[in-house]
Amino acid sequence: MAKRIKQIAIYGKGGIGKSTTTSNISAALSLLGFKVMQFGCDPKSDSTNTLRGGTFIPTVLDTLRDKGGGVRVHDVVYEGFNGIYCVEAGGPAPGVGCAGRGITTAVSLFKQQHVFDELGLDYVIFDVLGDVVCGGFAVPIREGIAEHVFTVSSSDFMAIYAANNLFTGIKKYSSSGGALLGGIIANSINQDYSRAIIDDFASRTGTRVVEYVPRSVTVTQSELQGKTTIEAAPDSIQAGIYKNLASKIASHNVSEIPQPLTGTELREWAAKWADRLLEIETGVINEEKAAI
Amino acid sequence: MAKRIKQIAIYGKGGIGKSTTTSNISAALSLLGFKVMQFGCDPKSDSTNTLRGGTFIPTVLDTLRDKGGGVRVHDVVYEGFNGIYCVEAGGPAPGVGCAGRGITTAVSLFKQQHVFDELGLDYVIFDVLGDVVCGGFAVPIREGIAEHVFTVSSSDFMAIYAANNLFTGIKKYSSSGGALLGGIIANSINQDYSRAIIDDFASRTGTRVVEYVPRSVTVTQSELQGKTTIEAAPDSIQAGIYKNLASKIASHNVSEIPQPLTGTELREWAAKWADRLLEIETGVINEEKAAI
Repeated sequence: MAKRIKQIAIYGKGGIGKSTTTSNISAALSLLGFKVMQFGCDPKSDSTNTLRGGTFIPTVLDTLRDKGGGVRVHDVVYEGFNGIYCVEAGGPAPGVGCAGRGITTAVSLFKQQHVFDELGLDYVIFDVLGDVVCGGFAVPIREGIAEHVFTVSSSDFMAIYAANNLFTGIKKYSSSGGALLGGIIANSINQDYSRAIIDDFASRTGTRVVEYVPRSVTVTQSELQGKTTIEAAPDSIQAGIYKNLASKIASHNVSEIPQPLTGTELREWAAKWADRLLEIETGVINEEKAAI
Repeated sequence: MAKRIKQIAIYGKGGIGKSTTTSNISAALSLLGFKVMQFGCDPKSDSTNTLRGGTFIPTVLDTLRDKGGGVRVHDVVYEGFNGIYCVEAGGPAPGVGCAGRGITTAVSLFKQQHVFDELGLDYVIFDVLGDVVCGGFAVPIREGIAEHVFTVSSSDFMAIYAANNLFTGIKKYSSSGGALLGGIIANSINQDYSRAIIDDFASRTGTRVVEYVPRSVTVTQSELQGKTTIEAAPDSIQAGIYKNLASKIASHNVSEIPQPLTGTELREWAAKWADRLLEIETGVINEEKAAI
């Protein structure tokens, strides 16, 4: 019998550190002895680069375009750091078609050819662009491809806005077998107030922060070498944080339906935080009090 | 006879300063005596906020959902700073449908009801989210709704990547009556090397930088008051830059087909710049030389 594969989607807006986080989670899970596939679902197709020495791999969509219908899925699976299987779904030609279709097409191919089972995987981790509100990118949620969704978010409003949209999508499809929310991975959290903002957002939307990941020059240094931090600086504090995060994801079993804010609620919430931060800056109240 | 309306689309990735730039251009054009409509095409629906004291207006899509088919387009046009007409297309429910459809639906309604002509406009400026590679957001280019496209870009790779995708879309539709490229509005350009990067990208893709807009605290201060810089700080250096930019756009008449880089070319180009910046940082070569 095929073993039970845990399928996880990690969403986040472009530039928020989604692929960095995902690749470090994959690397850490592989070191725990798990068989992992990382499935990049960003049209930029750079999700798995740091698992493969900083190089790009041919995408499923490009390969389909070049070779037509007869693609063997094994041809688009590349082995990366510590035996991690790397796949990039790819995207459409700019300005044409639906950017989410790459995900649908790629995942369907893998399912038809039973590749997930055949490779004896423990984890498939989908790395998905999360700043797009359309139906295409909701595929891993909507069609129950993933069971658990995590979102990478900083305390910036645009990242939180994207997270809240994601929560709205998850809630919508929760009654028809869609994926549920595991929690928020808080990224680039180096200041008290950024932690307070993300905590507040999590509490108001009925979810929780799984891990706080600080901004770190170790990550930049690792990526300049084309590596994850787990590979390049395995004994660093930052690698320890990613390992901790990976363990939490490994032991995570029960996801939930988030309670997204409405557009108006989110704007009012953001406006209150803007006022509070302005007060911190102008010294009207002291910072310690504001961070509560 | 209806006067000739100049229709301009300003694309840029989310968070790059696209709406800030667009609203300041609209404000400056209105001060030059032109009748301007700003047409927000970002699902966040906040394009026109600083033209209306920081407030949100109901979107075309939301109004259609609430009122059904009988929407009079005048009901979704709101007057802002100095008589500028403000419209927000709006977006779909998160995770459902096509995010670009808001643009198609909204623009079709306006055309059916001949609103652009009726209001005696000189300019319609579409403010469009540019980090999405799908067909939905290409509507203003593809269907010749806009004649001239400008893109707001910083020297960050993700902004340039989005600009290059935009150029690919423009080139694709150029032979079938699509909009052509006016140039790049270089935003947040405060350092020599960021100017050198964006100049180099413009030169390699057969276009030009229309204006360099530095990052400025005046902009932040103005926006915290819910205003454009043109309104809040009309005599500031930054307002002068926006006025200059608006004049250039007003006198711009001939757009061109850009020559986007391929994916591989863009990556190699970025890698070369990454090496050069590293050399600057580590002092291997001197900064002046590197900026050439």
